Amino acid sequence: MENLFYLVPAASLIALLFAWIFYHKMKQEDEGTPTMRQIAQFVREGAMAYLKQQYKVVIIVFIILAVFFAILAYGFGVQNPWVPFAFLTGGFFSGLAGFIGMKTATFASGRTANACRTSLNGGLKVAFRSGAVMGLTVVGLGLLDIALWWIVLNLCVNEASEAQKLVVITTTMLTFGMGASTQALFARVGGGIYTKAADVGADIVGKVESDLPEDDPRNPATIADNVGDNVGDVAGMGADLYESYCGSILSTMALGASAFYAAGPAMQTKAILAPMLIAAVGVILSVISIFTVRTKEGAGMAQLLKSMSFGTNMAAILSGVASFGILALVFGTGDSNWWHFSLSVLAGLLAGVIIGKATEYYTSHSYRPTQKLAESSATGPATVIISGVGLGMRSTAIPVVTIGAAIVLAFLCATGFDTNIMADGVLSKGLYGVAIAAVGMLSTLGITLATDAYGPIADNAGGNAQMSELDPEVRERTDVLDALGNTTAATGKGFAIGSAALTALALLASYIEEIKIAIGRTAGAVINGVDAATASILDVLAEFNVSLMNPTVLAGVFIGSMMAFLFCGLTMDAVGRAAQKMVVEVRRQFREIKGILTGEGTPDYKRCVEISTKAAQHEMLVPSILAILVPVLVGVILGVPGVLGLLIGGLGAGFVLAVFMSNSGGAWDNAKKYVEEGHLGGKNSESHHATVVGDTVGDPFKDTSGPSLNILIKLMSMVSIVMAGLTVAFHLM
Amino acid sequence: MENLFYLVPAASLIALLFAWIFYHKMKQEDEGTPTMRQIAQFVREGAMAYLKQQYKVVIIVFIILAVFFAILAYGFGVQNPWVPFAFLTGGFFSGLAGFIGMKTATFASGRTANACRTSLNGGLKVAFRSGAVMGLTVVGLGLLDIALWWIVLNLCVNEASEAQKLVVITTTMLTFGMGASTQALFARVGGGIYTKAADVGADIVGKVESDLPEDDPRNPATIADNVGDNVGDVAGMGADLYESYCGSILSTMALGASAFYAAGPAMQTKAILAPMLIAAVGVILSVISIFTVRTKEGAGMAQLLKSMSFGTNMAAILSGVASFGILALVFGTGDSNWWHFSLSVLAGLLAGVIIGKATEYYTSHSYRPTQKLAESSATGPATVIISGVGLGMRSTAIPVVTIGAAIVLAFLCATGFDTNIMADGVLSKGLYGVAIAAVGMLSTLGITLATDAYGPIADNAGGNAQMSELDPEVRERTDVLDALGNTTAATGKGFAIGSAALTALALLASYIEEIKIAIGRTAGAVINGVDAATASILDVLAEFNVSLMNPTVLAGVFIGSMMAFLFCGLTMDAVGRAAQKMVVEVRRQFREIKGILTGEGTPDYKRCVEISTKAAQHEMLVPSILAILVPVLVGVILGVPGVLGLLIGGLGAGFVLAVFMSNSGGAWDNAKKYVEEGHLGGKNSESHHATVVGDTVGDPFKDTSGPSLNILIKLMSMVSIVMAGLTVAFHLM
Repeated sequence: MENLFYLVPAASLIALLFAWIFYHKMKQEDEGTPTMRQIAQFVREGAMAYLKQQYKVVIIVFIILAVFFAILAYGFGVQNPWVPFAFLTGGFFSGLAGFIGMKTATFASGRTANACRTSLNGGLKVAFRSGAVMGLTVVGLGLLDIALWWIVLNLCVNEASEAQKLVVITTTMLTFGMGASTQALFARVGGGIYTKAADVGADIVGKVESDLPEDDPRNPATIADNVGDNVGDVAGMGADLYESYCGSILSTMALGASAFYAAGPAMQTKAILAPMLIAAVGVILSVISIFTVRTKEGAGMAQLLKSMSFGTNMAAILSGVASFGILALVFGTGDSNWWHFSLSVLAGLLAGVIIGKATEYYTSHSYRPTQKLAESSATGPATVIISGVGLGMRSTAIPVVTIGAAIVLAFLCATGFDTNIMADGVLSKGLYGVAIAAVGMLSTLGITLATDAYGPIADNAGGNAQMSELDPEVRERTDVLDALGNTTAATGKGFAIGSAALTALALLASYIEEIKIAIGRTAGAVINGVDAATASILDVLAEFNVSLMNPTVLAGVFIGSMMAFLFCGLTMDAVGRAAQKMVVEVRRQFREIKGILTGEGTPDYKRCVEISTKAAQHEMLVPSILAILVPVLVGVILGVPGVLGLLIGGLGAGFVLAVFMSNSGGAWDNAKKYVEEGHLGGKNSESHHATVVGDTVGDPFKDTSGPSLNILIKLMSMVSIVMAGLTVAFHLM
Repeated sequence: MENLFYLVPAASLIALLFAWIFYHKMKQEDEGTPTMRQIAQFVREGAMAYLKQQYKVVIIVFIILAVFFAILAYGFGVQNPWVPFAFLTGGFFSGLAGFIGMKTATFASGRTANACRTSLNGGLKVAFRSGAVMGLTVVGLGLLDIALWWIVLNLCVNEASEAQKLVVITTTMLTFGMGASTQALFARVGGGIYTKAADVGADIVGKVESDLPEDDPRNPATIADNVGDNVGDVAGMGADLYESYCGSILSTMALGASAFYAAGPAMQTKAILAPMLIAAVGVILSVISIFTVRTKEGAGMAQLLKSMSFGTNMAAILSGVASFGILALVFGTGDSNWWHFSLSVLAGLLAGVIIGKATEYYTSHSYRPTQKLAESSATGPATVIISGVGLGMRSTAIPVVTIGAAIVLAFLCATGFDTNIMADGVLSKGLYGVAIAAVGMLSTLGITLATDAYGPIADNAGGNAQMSELDPEVRERTDVLDALGNTTAATGKGFAIGSAALTALALLASYIEEIKIAIGRTAGAVINGVDAATASILDVLAEFNVSLMNPTVLAGVFIGSMMAFLFCGLTMDAVGRAAQKMVVEVRRQFREIKGILTGEGTPDYKRCVEISTKAAQHEMLVPSILAILVPVLVGVILGVPGVLGLLIGGLGAGFVLAVFMSNSGGAWDNAKKYVEEGHLGGKNSESHHATVVGDTVGDPFKDTSGPSLNILIKLMSMVSIVMAGLTVAFHLM
């Protein structure tokens, strides 16, 4: 059975191979007219220049943290010696996934625009296959990293027993999850601030004040806006989903090792292999499904959507079915209840689908909520904002109830509906079920991310078409692709956000396991009167007086809830400030450079790119560092109960806040599009101006603050896990 | 020592006596010109008409709930027979407090305007003394209700032991807290929707579209707007703070009875009397301090503020000092550690002051945050909204850290810095310390509420002056009073919001106690292997598998966090919808009734009053009923662990969300005022229009959704407590 493991590196290589093939096919496409090439070149250079700047800052942070970890590990012995290296590789691969995705996107958008000059299907093919490069790169690199560390650590780690060794290996691997999360947070926050500063700035001066259309070459912030789509929506999302993907697999592996500790290393190994194999098979299914996405010439939006949905749905259904096969292979021989975990996986998949549908319902202008939001523009921008906030807040109900139900169901399925969590092993087994549900949700990330990443490519293609002054028909085609991307992205978001909640839960359990290991390293090594090696999660909770009524737990819950808001507040502010600078600059150019608005003068695009770059670099530091520092401080001051409170409060409030902000932002965006399609007065009406204000406010909601929260939640957990040794060694309370 | 109890009804009567005296003195003032009388009459009638309508709806809800409780109590025996009656009296008194406050306010505002025709000091005196009527009525009625029920239940309840009897009495009294909370929620939500529908509607058409000043008689929504100030900011706030005041005392009494159960009835009685006595002495100190608030003629804003601050600070400091005396008297004879609880009270008071100062810093335009927010108006309404959301979210950090510290400190002070919560009695004692800290915070409510309630009176006085076309000097004077009210209200809000968090925590503990009692009523009556009567909080938690890692707890946390958002979403939407109707109506009147804008035609004020009334009545039902229903459903489906998760999630996310919404709203309001004072272009500039959009969005944030959250959090706890019997008798998991 252990040979099954080689499926993991194999799947990883297959994914990377197809990513490479798609990339080269895309590169062979024609990039179009000289103007198109030049604009693509501008955007590409701007994006790469920004990414280099971002990596410079991030590398410094990584070096500082790695040195800090090295001191903790080698100087004080409160940490595993592999931690600094695992941390660095996680960060490196996460960044690499974003980088490759972005490089592809910047080459693809011009080519997509050019393909749209001939046909819609041609455009779809280029854009979607390029999105697939990103999807397959993320899962390929993720599995590669996991497989490599698994092999290396298996060879190098020495522990008293095989069972203990497996626990140490898997929790060490969580450190590279922390590296990935740290990189992802910087990418999301930095990229998010960059793109939204440019977008908001461009919208305010361009659309509201000067009545220029989107992506008009007369708008000096246009290039920065298009660069932003790449660094934020592509590179940021790539790093983000790399983190989610690895996080779900790693946390399940760690839980598997500890949940089945008592059952011995054979069972542990099965539980560790299971998530890797589900992911590996998911990768192969994704590759197959990507090939099913195609349309006939002359296909409309509905047919396009159908084609994409067919691909993703097929992958999801096959993945659900396959999970039965995999788990039968892995667990079947020793355990007739193997299918219990498969039911957990199904609960996770189902939850992802429901959340995706709910997101679509609340944010697509094919449904009443967003249409009503658009109608509220009749009474001006204030009611648009009030209604949009109301809509987003209401839209949290279905996802939250779904996730709550999924948690309980995945747990109960895994335990065979045993609710006595106090009984030996029931709690660990149930939590393992929750964790593996998250893996199931993300197993088809290869294709769902392709449908997600293709959106910004189509968006940029539209930008290129507009700036190159191509036939309006081309822009219309890219608009169809872009709109389609918004809808498919909703489903992808459902999976991403749902899996984040489940993974965070698994990480909570891993934190407790890590505390156990940390105590195991100290003298005495007794937890709640039991030998540390055999202590259960409940023993650890009892040892540290972790109770719902413990005031430090409650103080932690408050601080955790607050962290979600504070983080969003800082990122919102950053966008606001940067956008103001952009507006001032664009207004200056309109005033000082003659003939911009008549098309006779050339705007200074570079200045705008610089403003976004500087703002993003400068503003991303504080919120990101806070996310790393606060869990450490809470651990040192309030101890283990405080940290658990922090993580639970952050998870609860953060998840709901993330759904609220993403959905409000999405609905504002689509309400504006609804008006632009000719409803309620159409473009340039009072209603349109009101919805543009809504869209502008929604930009940082949905593309900066909202999506960063998923990473924040997990990063705080990862930091706590990595710092568990320090917390055990020193805490005030 | 038991005779000390009579201080409670005595203090209550003193408060009501002074309220009566202030009321009659106010009534003797002159109401001014015939126009002024007529306008005051309009507003008074509108407000009373609305309140009658609201009470009609609320009475039906109360009857249904009381019948339901009666069935549970008499039919199934899963509840105490006193519950339905206690519930009804709580609702009645809470409503009465709001009613009296509002009646006073509607008589006072015209008279304040008239007094301002002569002098600022005269206006201050009338407005502030009238605010004091409300403050003293709330605390007087609260203490009266508590004293009466304490006497009645002491006479009527029969239990196996005296110790058990005290537990049953105090938890029964929590039911009238639930009545008060239910009434308060309807008052806050209904009143909040009413006032903001009118305000938002009036602002959008009046200020943004027609450039009319605030309270211009040509604006058809003006009367509705002024009525709204009374039903929302006065009646709503009165019911709200009655609920907070009683809630803090009652939860402390209940905790006192259970925390010292093992120590016997003598000690229990002391612990029950302590919060009542702290409150009673606070009432007397408030009355004295109210008389210190006065200014010399020609006093400026700074002096006015100084005078008010002197009164509230004196009351707070004296109350802190007095608590040492009271607790020495109560506990001193048997326990040399009595001063431990006094330190808890001080921790609470200090936290209230810090939160108040932080609120002022973030929302007053004397400080940078709000000034910066105003400056963001240079780039239009979108950046005002983004910056305001950012400001509000950032502003949650200080209050949350303060509350976290206060909880831990109040707990540790009470236990004499014993952190071993697993030891017998330590947990209960510590939680009692947290509860009594909340009582300390609210003990001077008599005067802090006076400084709060006087704001809307001054605001309405300004409205009256404007509509009666008095000398501009009069409006300037009322504006000074109004602005002052905004600042003093910040401190009041700090105390209200801080005490809500602490009270909610105490209610959590009471919930567990009530579960214990409910099991005590069933056959067997064993909890975690211990006799139900002597079981501890920790036994109950263990019996129901309540652990941080229990999936039902975590599902509960998610749902609780979501409830805060869903509730705000529903109320925001309600305001948005109602405001749109108002805008449409006002536009219609401008179009159809000739000569309104030139002052020759009379607008149809009544139509606008009707729209607000209907909208408020119609829209308040769903969110309010949800707040009552969800805890019941969670109890039945997820059981005790689910309910505890729900309450903790709701508390964490709800508290932070409340601070965010209140502070964003307050800052937007003051940013607008800052511009209106002549900064950044002054009135009617582009900046002004942008800040008006911010203010309009902020209206429901700070006056509808935000303040309702405090009540929501506590009401969900109260409902859970009252329904504990049902949950124990029937739960799926």
